[in-house]
Amino acid sequence: MKQDKIYYGGDYNPDQWPEEILEQDIPMFQKAGINLVTLPVFSWAKLQPSEEVYCFDWLDRVIDRLWRAGISVCLSTPTAAQPAWMSRKYPDMLPVDISGLRRTHGKRVNFCPNSPDYRRFSTAIAEKMGERYGKHPAVVLWHVANEYGTYCYCPQCERKFREWLKDRYHTVEELNARWNLSFWGHTVYDWDEVVIPSERNDDYRFYQPVYLDYRRFMTDSNLDCFRAEYNILKKYSPDIPITTNISGFIQQLDQMKFCKHVDIAGWDNYPWPTDPPARVAMKHDLMRGLKQGKPYLMVEQAPSQQNWQPYNVQKRPGELRRLSYQAMAHGADSVMYFQMRQSVAGVEKFHSALISHAGHENTRVFREMSQIGRELAALGGQTVGAVSKNQAAILFDWDNWWAAEGSNGPSRDLKYLEQVEKYYTAFYKRNIPVDFVSMEDDLSGYRVLVTPMLYMVKPGCGEKLREFVKKGGTLLTTVFSGIVDENDRVPVGGYPGELSDILGIWVEETDALRPEQSNRIVGKEAPFVGSFSCGLLCDVIHLTAPDTEALCVFGEDYYKDFPCVTCHPFGEGTAYYVGTNPEERFADALIGKIAGERGLRPVLEASEIPEGIEITCRENENGRFYYLLSFRKGETAVNLARSGKNFINAVTGEKVGDSLLMKEYDCFLLRER
Amino acid sequence: MKQDKIYYGGDYNPDQWPEEILEQDIPMFQKAGINLVTLPVFSWAKLQPSEEVYCFDWLDRVIDRLWRAGISVCLSTPTAAQPAWMSRKYPDMLPVDISGLRRTHGKRVNFCPNSPDYRRFSTAIAEKMGERYGKHPAVVLWHVANEYGTYCYCPQCERKFREWLKDRYHTVEELNARWNLSFWGHTVYDWDEVVIPSERNDDYRFYQPVYLDYRRFMTDSNLDCFRAEYNILKKYSPDIPITTNISGFIQQLDQMKFCKHVDIAGWDNYPWPTDPPARVAMKHDLMRGLKQGKPYLMVEQAPSQQNWQPYNVQKRPGELRRLSYQAMAHGADSVMYFQMRQSVAGVEKFHSALISHAGHENTRVFREMSQIGRELAALGGQTVGAVSKNQAAILFDWDNWWAAEGSNGPSRDLKYLEQVEKYYTAFYKRNIPVDFVSMEDDLSGYRVLVTPMLYMVKPGCGEKLREFVKKGGTLLTTVFSGIVDENDRVPVGGYPGELSDILGIWVEETDALRPEQSNRIVGKEAPFVGSFSCGLLCDVIHLTAPDTEALCVFGEDYYKDFPCVTCHPFGEGTAYYVGTNPEERFADALIGKIAGERGLRPVLEASEIPEGIEITCRENENGRFYYLLSFRKGETAVNLARSGKNFINAVTGEKVGDSLLMKEYDCFLLRER
Amino acid sequence: MKQDKIYYGGDYNPDQWPEEILEQDIPMFQKAGINLVTLPVFSWAKLQPSEEVYCFDWLDRVIDRLWRAGISVCLSTPTAAQPAWMSRKYPDMLPVDISGLRRTHGKRVNFCPNSPDYRRFSTAIAEKMGERYGKHPAVVLWHVANEYGTYCYCPQCERKFREWLKDRYHTVEELNARWNLSFWGHTVYDWDEVVIPSERNDDYRFYQPVYLDYRRFMTDSNLDCFRAEYNILKKYSPDIPITTNISGFIQQLDQMKFCKHVDIAGWDNYPWPTDPPARVAMKHDLMRGLKQGKPYLMVEQAPSQQNWQPYNVQKRPGELRRLSYQAMAHGADSVMYFQMRQSVAGVEKFHSALISHAGHENTRVFREMSQIGRELAALGGQTVGAVSKNQAAILFDWDNWWAAEGSNGPSRDLKYLEQVEKYYTAFYKRNIPVDFVSMEDDLSGYRVLVTPMLYMVKPGCGEKLREFVKKGGTLLTTVFSGIVDENDRVPVGGYPGELSDILGIWVEETDALRPEQSNRIVGKEAPFVGSFSCGLLCDVIHLTAPDTEALCVFGEDYYKDFPCVTCHPFGEGTAYYVGTNPEERFADALIGKIAGERGLRPVLEASEIPEGIEITCRENENGRFYYLLSFRKGETAVNLARSGKNFINAVTGEKVGDSLLMKEYDCFLLRER
Repeated sequence: MKQDKIYYGGDYNPDQWPEEILEQDIPMFQKAGINLVTLPVFSWAKLQPSEEVYCFDWLDRVIDRLWRAGISVCLSTPTAAQPAWMSRKYPDMLPVDISGLRRTHGKRVNFCPNSPDYRRFSTAIAEKMGERYGKHPAVVLWHVANEYGTYCYCPQCERKFREWLKDRYHTVEELNARWNLSFWGHTVYDWDEVVIPSERNDDYRFYQPVYLDYRRFMTDSNLDCFRAEYNILKKYSPDIPITTNISGFIQQLDQMKFCKHVDIAGWDNYPWPTDPPARVAMKHDLMRGLKQGKPYLMVEQAPSQQNWQPYNVQKRPGELRRLSYQAMAHGADSVMYFQMRQSVAGVEKFHSALISHAGHENTRVFREMSQIGRELAALGGQTVGAVSKNQAAILFDWDNWWAAEGSNGPSRDLKYLEQVEKYYTAFYKRNIPVDFVSMEDDLSGYRVLVTPMLYMVKPGCGEKLREFVKKGGTLLTTVFSGIVDENDRVPVGGYPGELSDILGIWVEETDALRPEQSNRIVGKEAPFVGSFSCGLLCDVIHLTAPDTEALCVFGEDYYKDFPCVTCHPFGEGTAYYVGTNPEERFADALIGKIAGERGLRPVLEASEIPEGIEITCRENENGRFYYLLSFRKGETAVNLARSGKNFINAVTGEKVGDSLLMKEYDCFLLRER
Repeated sequence: MKQDKIYYGGDYNPDQWPEEILEQDIPMFQKAGINLVTLPVFSWAKLQPSEEVYCFDWLDRVIDRLWRAGISVCLSTPTAAQPAWMSRKYPDMLPVDISGLRRTHGKRVNFCPNSPDYRRFSTAIAEKMGERYGKHPAVVLWHVANEYGTYCYCPQCERKFREWLKDRYHTVEELNARWNLSFWGHTVYDWDEVVIPSERNDDYRFYQPVYLDYRRFMTDSNLDCFRAEYNILKKYSPDIPITTNISGFIQQLDQMKFCKHVDIAGWDNYPWPTDPPARVAMKHDLMRGLKQGKPYLMVEQAPSQQNWQPYNVQKRPGELRRLSYQAMAHGADSVMYFQMRQSVAGVEKFHSALISHAGHENTRVFREMSQIGRELAALGGQTVGAVSKNQAAILFDWDNWWAAEGSNGPSRDLKYLEQVEKYYTAFYKRNIPVDFVSMEDDLSGYRVLVTPMLYMVKPGCGEKLREFVKKGGTLLTTVFSGIVDENDRVPVGGYPGELSDILGIWVEETDALRPEQSNRIVGKEAPFVGSFSCGLLCDVIHLTAPDTEALCVFGEDYYKDFPCVTCHPFGEGTAYYVGTNPEERFADALIGKIAGERGLRPVLEASEIPEGIEITCRENENGRFYYLLSFRKGETAVNLARSGKNFINAVTGEKVGDSLLMKEYDCFLLRER
Repeated sequence: MKQDKIYYGGDYNPDQWPEEILEQDIPMFQKAGINLVTLPVFSWAKLQPSEEVYCFDWLDRVIDRLWRAGISVCLSTPTAAQPAWMSRKYPDMLPVDISGLRRTHGKRVNFCPNSPDYRRFSTAIAEKMGERYGKHPAVVLWHVANEYGTYCYCPQCERKFREWLKDRYHTVEELNARWNLSFWGHTVYDWDEVVIPSERNDDYRFYQPVYLDYRRFMTDSNLDCFRAEYNILKKYSPDIPITTNISGFIQQLDQMKFCKHVDIAGWDNYPWPTDPPARVAMKHDLMRGLKQGKPYLMVEQAPSQQNWQPYNVQKRPGELRRLSYQAMAHGADSVMYFQMRQSVAGVEKFHSALISHAGHENTRVFREMSQIGRELAALGGQTVGAVSKNQAAILFDWDNWWAAEGSNGPSRDLKYLEQVEKYYTAFYKRNIPVDFVSMEDDLSGYRVLVTPMLYMVKPGCGEKLREFVKKGGTLLTTVFSGIVDENDRVPVGGYPGELSDILGIWVEETDALRPEQSNRIVGKEAPFVGSFSCGLLCDVIHLTAPDTEALCVFGEDYYKDFPCVTCHPFGEGTAYYVGTNPEERFADALIGKIAGERGLRPVLEASEIPEGIEITCRENENGRFYYLLSFRKGETAVNLARSGKNFINAVTGEKVGDSLLMKEYDCFLLRER
């Protein structure tokens, strides 16, 4: 089933209302341009009032009514929140938390992913729904459950963890070796001696190899829940894509792994009001990377206020539209919301909606959403499926995230995302598009690869990077890289381990600076003339290859004049290393230098576009589409003539002149003529 | 039994000492003017050494000895701390905390209020005490237990909660509706599916309607404990008033509800050294409001240091006396302390007492307490029973406190007490007396009613406010009002819900500001000329009645020039709305304007009394009494002549001249001649 | 067995590596001058793979191989970390934490010290090791377990606690009295009513006498574990000293008591990078005091980074050497490390080692360690056993630490260590050596005794101090002294209780200041002319003896002009009291005054040595040794001529001239000629 328009709509919970509400809501949906609603996400209790009884009639009526109104359905299994009677009858469905206490019924996403009862009931209702709605013409998407990612520490999980380990390591001897269990005498002689890492034994923060595998196991456990439902739905609807919504950029679930198993990736975009635009853009780009550049869905965003932040700021006029265009700009083929009608009680009652507590359409938020709806209707399916073809990539890896931040030392302030964002932002500011990739992806199309803080070098990774550089690629890696293997074990021989020959350096020591301390990066040649601030970690580096060059040195302390930033020609390529956490200005300079060397250009060539105008490009069989968003105060004139291209406004169909005047919050979607 | 003097004394724990201590202590009590002691608050273990054995002989001797010395007794049941043997034998008496863990014996107020064993034993000892002491001439007051308010989360409480809900809602369908349980699919089909809201399921902060009822249920559970003892004591002493001590202004117990069932309200006044005087005054006024203006008891205050604060500051010379007069100034007919003799070990050993660890009377604190004792003796019963007749009132409501602060969003900084205090203080500074009222009280006597942050509008409340204004009252309500019903459900139709027609406005949005952000209130006419700072929440307001007037508008942001403060003539009255959290200066100006319009005058007419001189008035059959307290540094001359009244010093009996010279900490109690 | 050299080496865990690693490591050990390694600290699981099976062959080979290489062994029992199979089979070995939850297997030092199974297994393996290695020539030290100090709150501990109490107090009546259980009606009638103080009843912070005894009981429980192994090892190796490593200066274990039972005290020195040198010196001096001045062992220090600090700073070049000399300067006869070879995974993988992850010797850290090794080899046994003879002492007492900081009030900022360090530092800056003593030690050799914040005056303590002063000693005690007895009960009669006659004062009140508040100490005579800042606590003091003199008075508040610092001639001595927490500058002046009066001189007489040059002296049959360490930036010339002594460099054997030029980090060990 081919998507023929940008999906516009989102979560709808008519089961929280009398059924007559449909007659109020549907006209408003139509007025706002809604073409898809997601349901019945949390309706398990209503769909299955008891073990033997299912009630689908109300849902039949809702779907039919929507369909008659021209609104499609993203049909969700309701398995993120089991009914109260189920938790009561089968209490092992409830998870045990990291402190070892069994939870009681309540909240949502409150199930043990390894509970056989959960699996039995969740697949049963998926079967019923597949059977009943698998061919319904309203259904254009399947959605499974909601925001997977719960960890459980129950005895059932402990047993399954041991089986998972047996599958992975086969013998206890191998387990002892891979987990380095001789440390502190943790050696096991029997699989049953493996204990779940938790707050009860502190191994969740004291024994990294153990907890690292528990995170992997929990990703797999959640994935098994998803796949069990997926396989059933696929049987009934082989042509309908299946998705689930990822809760933002959360750490606990390996989304790279998880999204291999969805048909189309989907995520919930809830930025903080203080997030810089580059951070939001980065998360979109990551989402696109999960499926190797394929378009994805923005499954949720808040029309205005979010209820769960400490200060629930209203989105400013124009802000929602810009966020919506930004999603499409990076590869989303949907603009979807939580939710259509605001709940009247419970934790989310102050989460904004298309239809607010006022109950009518005469609100600022409704008007802004309607404008977006109209524009998307005018745009039609032109951009659907369009992709970006980029020459730079950043490696992102959940195992590395878990391991680097889970390490005891060298600094508790070490944050993987901050390091990734720092280098991403340097590309972003220049409107040079970047892909996020995993180590399993094909790197051959890229000229530049950045692997920020590549603490963990998994099997094959070193070799793959070696090949990439040898064949002419430019690699940039940064402080605290090449330290451990996939089990968080340090290979003896000196940092950066497998990356040593590529980078041509040996890192003898890594000094950790307290927050009030800093050092300086001192360079002599452009673009590094002068000095830049740095901190967090400082590597004591030795050049080990005759042709490794120290581009910059440290300016202070006992490693003053030691190399800080190095460059090593390797094969036909070049490998850069930044042995500290530099200020943003330095990352900008370095990425500028690398971009210059490798001919990475802004998405709109030769333009003189000031910082704060975000531009991306997507292309498909209908042409090349340029997205321009203004994050600048006041008015900005963007000179399009220098690009040598001609444009049509893809929404209005009008020709666009040489100069585009952009106010703050303005967005343009241009098609190249 | 009519009270014939201000009670002066407090907690006495002779059971922590050899019995001979009485012979040391009683002469010191007499010297200090003590006329009442409270006992035996924590002596259950001594009074009942085992299930079958009671030991009252020692208490007989203590009471008789006090009585012979002319000291009355406030006789307390000891049921706030069950004996260790009891907890051991009946472990279900111990509460389960919010994380689901059963507590062990220790501390105090450490019982499950729904434990049948607790109820059985606490009523049995109340029966024994009523029988034995109910007619003892020393006993002038009964006191039940101590500082009620414990919450428990045990299975017994869960069962009782379900029964309580059945009584309240009758059917699960009604429960589902009232709790909006369709949200997140929490629908129940059987009462036994209701789960206690706790940290085990997070519903204590994620499912407001549930936790709101749990708070009500816990108030009722505590109240049932109190009433069980009350009814027994009443049987034996129909003429002796029964009280209990409320622990300050605590949130967890609905004191408005609780105090309906005490004969005379009593509370523990433990201000922080940094508390402004208005805050202390406000808490006294609230206490008076719990029983519709009747005098109450200050059951505890610290002679000097309090042990439980992070920094146990000594009260400055004169500070205790001023606090004592302040209590009487607002309606207390007692000045009582914790405690008579300082404990030598345990958590309270550094809590100050009449007789300190020095063991003698030659201390500053003893001297200051003796002075107060002498003055109260001189005052005699003149002021007992005196009340205040006020024209302004502030609504205070525990349900509203729970609900407004329990809400997820719009701001975590939202504090009900701060809003109440802000408007209270504006009256306080002008010495315009204010009552606190509940929605069940008669409002007809008031000209002005302030309902700060009236988030929850309970059944009948909207109508009552409508009538109040229609009949000529002035209503002031403020930001985040009219949002939910008594189950924390938002009525669809727009904020401020039931208050909309009264206020003549529609609040489309409520923006939350981060702490570092602010907006401005801009006015053109006196007293609002210029601009005032505001923050926390800002309402986007539309005027919906032709005669609603925007007194001020916002000065910044996308709602710049939108109404911020409104005024709506309604019936014969007027309704004001402040759609933000203004700086104090603005509240002062607004209350000044309203006071001017409605002829609210300071307690001493026509005086030119500077800020920092607190004045109140109480009256009874003996005349009108004026309390003057100085919170000003240095000397202040108060001109009494302008009041047109003549005064006698009620303590010394001396005439008072036209000018009263007040030093810091000075207090005067004047009777109008 | 007489120690004939400074032990140089530390923890070695060859069981974390293939056995061949020995052939790589031992040559490096030799190169670095290592003469002792500690093992097999955490190898219980390897030594005892199951209940019936022991495996010592690998350890035999390791010890033999080391011995052949000339390296001695500090042989450790592995009982700090029981094997996983043992925890699984005997789960009562696992401790219950203070919140009442049973822990699971993991971490280390994770056993219940009262578990009979733990006792049985730990003594069994000690027996096996004693039997096998008790006469092995490589073994020169026994080391038991690791960093004792775990608290457990399990039912078994509760039963043992009751027995411990029965032994101590004999009757419940005595228990009720000593614990003041009549407070809050906690009276018990049966030993079985005693409940463990924990977070489940809050008595761990609300009922000081109870928790104080629980701390004592836990010290005894840990000690019993140690002694059970000690007695077995002693049987096999009567001549080999037995030690264990104390984890720094931790509060939970009474090290004064514990170290009575070790042959030689040992501790782990892990300073924070921000610790002033005086703090490190103080901890060394305390360690020396634990065994009445006998040399002790520094069992662990980090070669460079420590993994567990928030920011793992590298030790600067020279810093490790200075820390090593500082240890010896204060009485250590060893310089030992954790560890010899860096672990590759787990919580300690970023803890530095002699052999780093690089795996070779070409590192800065290895070079610095080798230099120390060479110097110690050159020094030989000259200084072994040398002691210091000092005239000033500071009392340190764990009970006092527990009780003073466990008190509710008067201030939560009250820290015993800070008070001790303040007065210690005043001596340190002047290079006047100080001993730490307990109240059980002989005080007769001292001229000056400082008892900072002597909150708890245990039986006999008052009398001992009285004798000390009467016979001519100078006593200095400070604010919050003389408050409670050994059960945290205040003796009635006024502070400072038993110290009142000695000090000639009565402290009527103790005011607590908030952090933002301060008062002033005002003096008229040298060295107190002018004013000094003070805070935290301020005593309201009355002079009760005719000859008590107020050296200084307070400068502010209602106790302005009241005595603040007093001096009282008593018998042939003098007793000083400081009734507040003074700024450091005041402590310096006061200690200077006292030193002048009592003829306490710097360790190098008549020298004009600037602050920042630390000097100590130790002497034995080989002469007097002076340790000079520079903590000053840049170069400092130290004039030795003024001392009237001649010196030889004890390491190089060279004569030392009159002036010693010291750079930052420089250390000299001089022997007087």
